[in-house]
Amino acid sequence: MAARDADAALITSLANVRYLTGLASSNAALLLPASGTGAVLATDSRYALAAQRDCPDLELLTERFIEPALARVAADRGLRRLAFEAHEMTVERHQAFAGAAPGTELLPLGRAVEKLRMVKDEQEIALLARACAITSQAFDEIVPRIRPGMTERDLAVLLERAMADLGAERPAFDTIVASGPNGAIPHHVPSGRAFSPGDMITVDCGARHAGYHADMTRTVVLGEPAGWQRDIYALVAAAQQAGIEAATPGADVAVVDAAARGLIADAGHGDHFTHGLGHGVGLEIHEAPIMGYGRPGTLGDRVPITVEPGIYLPGEGGVRIEDTLVVRAGSGTAAPQELLTTTTRELLVL
Amino acid sequence: MAARDADAALITSLANVRYLTGLASSNAALLLPASGTGAVLATDSRYALAAQRDCPDLELLTERFIEPALARVAADRGLRRLAFEAHEMTVERHQAFAGAAPGTELLPLGRAVEKLRMVKDEQEIALLARACAITSQAFDEIVPRIRPGMTERDLAVLLERAMADLGAERPAFDTIVASGPNGAIPHHVPSGRAFSPGDMITVDCGARHAGYHADMTRTVVLGEPAGWQRDIYALVAAAQQAGIEAATPGADVAVVDAAARGLIADAGHGDHFTHGLGHGVGLEIHEAPIMGYGRPGTLGDRVPITVEPGIYLPGEGGVRIEDTLVVRAGSGTAAPQELLTTTTRELLVL
Repeated sequence: MAARDADAALITSLANVRYLTGLASSNAALLLPASGTGAVLATDSRYALAAQRDCPDLELLTERFIEPALARVAADRGLRRLAFEAHEMTVERHQAFAGAAPGTELLPLGRAVEKLRMVKDEQEIALLARACAITSQAFDEIVPRIRPGMTERDLAVLLERAMADLGAERPAFDTIVASGPNGAIPHHVPSGRAFSPGDMITVDCGARHAGYHADMTRTVVLGEPAGWQRDIYALVAAAQQAGIEAATPGADVAVVDAAARGLIADAGHGDHFTHGLGHGVGLEIHEAPIMGYGRPGTLGDRVPITVEPGIYLPGEGGVRIEDTLVVRAGSGTAAPQELLTTTTRELLVL
Repeated sequence: MAARDADAALITSLANVRYLTGLASSNAALLLPASGTGAVLATDSRYALAAQRDCPDLELLTERFIEPALARVAADRGLRRLAFEAHEMTVERHQAFAGAAPGTELLPLGRAVEKLRMVKDEQEIALLARACAITSQAFDEIVPRIRPGMTERDLAVLLERAMADLGAERPAFDTIVASGPNGAIPHHVPSGRAFSPGDMITVDCGARHAGYHADMTRTVVLGEPAGWQRDIYALVAAAQQAGIEAATPGADVAVVDAAARGLIADAGHGDHFTHGLGHGVGLEIHEAPIMGYGRPGTLGDRVPITVEPGIYLPGEGGVRIEDTLVVRAGSGTAAPQELLTTTTRELLVL
């Protein structure tokens, strides 16, 4: 706020509101004066009791339309320069806010709260670690049940159920199960396709625990793998290991991406690795830092990320291997990366 | 588009893109020329194969950054006046688009596609009906298993599992289970609170099927209900019935809301019914028309909505009864409302 010479910040990203206040709501915003006192949390009546319970130290405003209400508060308090989240607020809401506070100047805050969220404290890491432990354990439990004839959808349901049984509050995202040729579609929606001997099966899954999102992918093979399957699996595994080793505090995210991507490109599969290497995880499944796509950024101590290279061969199949890990300022012999997802990365031959 | 004198519409709401193209993607946009030909669907590489499969009649653009790519296409084709979705596009994306197409004028399209989506065709209604049938059946199956000592979370997991077993692709939203005093919180998150004899338990749940969202709420009571519990249940049930009967083609949504709200207010509980009466359902869990909060709108033939009055008594508990139904232009003796959720609305005493 100081950099923008702002009188206050208007936080409208729901993940950012939750991070700063503790309130999980589908309709809330926070007015945060630069002075550091007098923050106002606005939400509607559905969340009023939860806000009273979870945010006793904040002034609460219960309103049907939270933007105009906060605009009036800002005007009443003489907060004239408001930094807002331009990456989150819609053009329409922006106009509504400006219309309700004519004397107010709205200036972009940028991703200031997202930058704070990138580095987790140990309490957050413990919640994320629990989400990852649930994910790995659920996956390990269902692997022995994969059989020819089972469908992609069957497996997705089985896995989500195992995560719920282990205490997940819900899946962190729609589980992906992509078998045989479907494995070439990175974000394939589980279908009624039944598994056949010789299929590779890619499973991308995660549990959410206390708002924190785990993310893990494994590719298994049903029956003895063909040579090309072993080859691309080994290549993706080597690329993932190179990416993990490059993910140290202070590393440029482009360098981390390149460490994995280079191995795949050198083997002639550069065009078959069509997405970024990974992303931050926390209160959102995809958050800062994004690694790949030419995005800028630097890793730091206590930054949880995914590392998830893949090779996708249209019409044939694909392999992706993904883990959630915490980049750590390791000392002495401690590794600078702490793997939170623990399922083996060896090729599972079922 | 004609009303705006626009050369093309830029559709960025993902639900609207799915409605118009069939593509379910987390990153897609559609450039729709007013001429009616030459539509361009942009998505990233993760969804390229799905788009080729699902949208063979559209020109596809696979790009990492879809807005600048579509801006260039618009500029190349001389599409100068672009109607955009101001209620969906962020201020930042709007600036990025404008920056990539300097000669282009961006004007608000309004909720034009949402208005189209409000009226469903019979194929959509069949998908929604299936989602609702799964929901009702799952609820009916788990009701006999509710016992003292079971927690809110246990019940939510049980219900979501039953929906998955019956073929739901996933829950339409986070299941709400609110027992005892928690029933006074309309959007309570299921907790570790164990049910006790005398509790009312409100369950708000729904299955998603083929992208369509069901929404149903029932309040049950564990053991013989107290007089005040019977009284507010009967009042909410009467209010719901009045709301359902008022929901006819051509009805003003404010009149429908008032039909239910008036009964509750007349009984002295106006301040305890703190949310709108209902909302449209379809590819989104909350969509047009919104009923309540002074929103304008008129019902029409083949408009699916929820009707969900509630009474919330802080510290004591609450009742909400909600169904998903289709407003129909009934002829002769046919009712103008078709209930899609079929669980009994009588008070279930367990």
